[in-house]
Amino acid sequence: MLPFARVTIIGLGLIGSSIARAVRATMPTVRLTGHDADAQVRARARDLGFCDDVTDQAGAAVVDADLVILCVPVGAMPAVAAEIAADLPADAVLSDVGSSKAGVAAVLAEIFPHHAVIPAHPVAGTERSGPDAGFATLFDKRWCILTPAADADPVAVERVKAFWTRLGAEIEVMEAKHHDLVLAITSHLPHLIAFTIVGTASDLEQVTQSEVIKYSAGGFRDFTRIAASDPTMWRDVFLSNREAVLEMLQRFSEDLSALQRAIRWGDGDALFDLFSRTRAVRRSIVEQGQDDASEDFGRAH
Amino acid sequence: MLPFARVTIIGLGLIGSSIARAVRATMPTVRLTGHDADAQVRARARDLGFCDDVTDQAGAAVVDADLVILCVPVGAMPAVAAEIAADLPADAVLSDVGSSKAGVAAVLAEIFPHHAVIPAHPVAGTERSGPDAGFATLFDKRWCILTPAADADPVAVERVKAFWTRLGAEIEVMEAKHHDLVLAITSHLPHLIAFTIVGTASDLEQVTQSEVIKYSAGGFRDFTRIAASDPTMWRDVFLSNREAVLEMLQRFSEDLSALQRAIRWGDGDALFDLFSRTRAVRRSIVEQGQDDASEDFGRAH
Repeated sequence: MLPFARVTIIGLGLIGSSIARAVRATMPTVRLTGHDADAQVRARARDLGFCDDVTDQAGAAVVDADLVILCVPVGAMPAVAAEIAADLPADAVLSDVGSSKAGVAAVLAEIFPHHAVIPAHPVAGTERSGPDAGFATLFDKRWCILTPAADADPVAVERVKAFWTRLGAEIEVMEAKHHDLVLAITSHLPHLIAFTIVGTASDLEQVTQSEVIKYSAGGFRDFTRIAASDPTMWRDVFLSNREAVLEMLQRFSEDLSALQRAIRWGDGDALFDLFSRTRAVRRSIVEQGQDDASEDFGRAH
Repeated sequence: MLPFARVTIIGLGLIGSSIARAVRATMPTVRLTGHDADAQVRARARDLGFCDDVTDQAGAAVVDADLVILCVPVGAMPAVAAEIAADLPADAVLSDVGSSKAGVAAVLAEIFPHHAVIPAHPVAGTERSGPDAGFATLFDKRWCILTPAADADPVAVERVKAFWTRLGAEIEVMEAKHHDLVLAITSHLPHLIAFTIVGTASDLEQVTQSEVIKYSAGGFRDFTRIAASDPTMWRDVFLSNREAVLEMLQRFSEDLSALQRAIRWGDGDALFDLFSRTRAVRRSIVEQGQDDASEDFGRAH
């Protein structure tokens, strides 16, 4: 049995359009409705045809849905939620895919006190954005974290679990606050650091921009991929998960200072010890299927 | 005409064994001799057969060479250089592949005052190490930077250029000091940061190691690839390129502090401005063929 029959996706970028394509591929009888605030994105989504219907108004998209997923930057969630509040059917389940959860969950709970609100975060993505960037297998074997409130309707939780399982994801349930701490280290801080170093490299006087690009294969290019991610989405993530990001950043800075000191004082043993330890983490990630085992990310040689 | 007829490679890890394989593929008549300080690596190299001969002593490997390339961690260069000093033919060209150049160049110039010393740095690699990790196309379309002293024999420079061109590399010549500054930002600092964040993530109390690994697809896993690089090699790089690395690290830390402040004070515009700027750098790298255009590094989906 299908967990939902009429799914609405608000926000048709990388994640929203990937969900639509994955639903088409795995639950072809589901009726899919989409909406995006950007008229150009709506037009493109109609051309690509991954929804049965793309509406011009957010409210019109949700009127007969049994699942509505908000796939917009977390900063845009309050406005979008307010826009659909009057039209959301009483028995519809409301979900989202925001990268930070506690702030968004609080907003949705306030606007929808009588609905089943089951926030979710599929931990998957690429550096691309927009309706053309999505693909049906994006969530395959990736984790999707649900962060329902303690008093959330357990049936609604099971249905959202079943939905994401159909899309190929593995499911984990945790508290929103803990999610935000975990993602601060596994996703938000890596992005912040990547954005920073690419910025630092752009601002040097002694080394030209063209030299940075030419010799980027020495490691730098790996950071530029992440630093090419959507600016609006990431601005909102840092603003909404401020506390957890600042805590992780503080720890990172302390560790970096310790390494700086080791380099300054020529403490090779301290460097070697850390560098040996970090190797094992990579091995575990590959063993658990969370990254390609092929060397160099499988880049063609 | 071949630039060299009898090439000796000291150190048969990722880079050394890749050079040997690339020579085999592009200059099959060259006689290849190899040596490694590690008896197990020598045995494995003999099995793999990418050299005509693998000698037990470094000196024996160089006696009739016209090009000797040192492919050992930069900290091991002085000892290896001393080991071959008595046996290196007077007309042989000596080169290396160290990731930092000024320090190594000084050591080699001191030990070999009468030889043509043409240091080189092929900006290429993967996260793997050892004789099995090498492959013939590693240097294809990658940059190889030569840092000959101002008074170096121009004929020797041309021959080393021709050698690397045959292996598929693009050649650039620059001063050793400038090389070290450029690589500090494009390679050394990215590695230092990746090692640090993987270490920070391993040390958290509130987030378990298994959570870090499970949710690494949010960005963290990209850093673990670099942080899986060879510990000895990287310890030596940081110790030998101390000044340039510390300078770049200082700039990076300042920029990170500025972003930290922007997050703390909710300055979304500052974040958005930086995140928009860094996107363009990625585009240039892909346009100039220094990385795969395929999304997500071309990971299989």
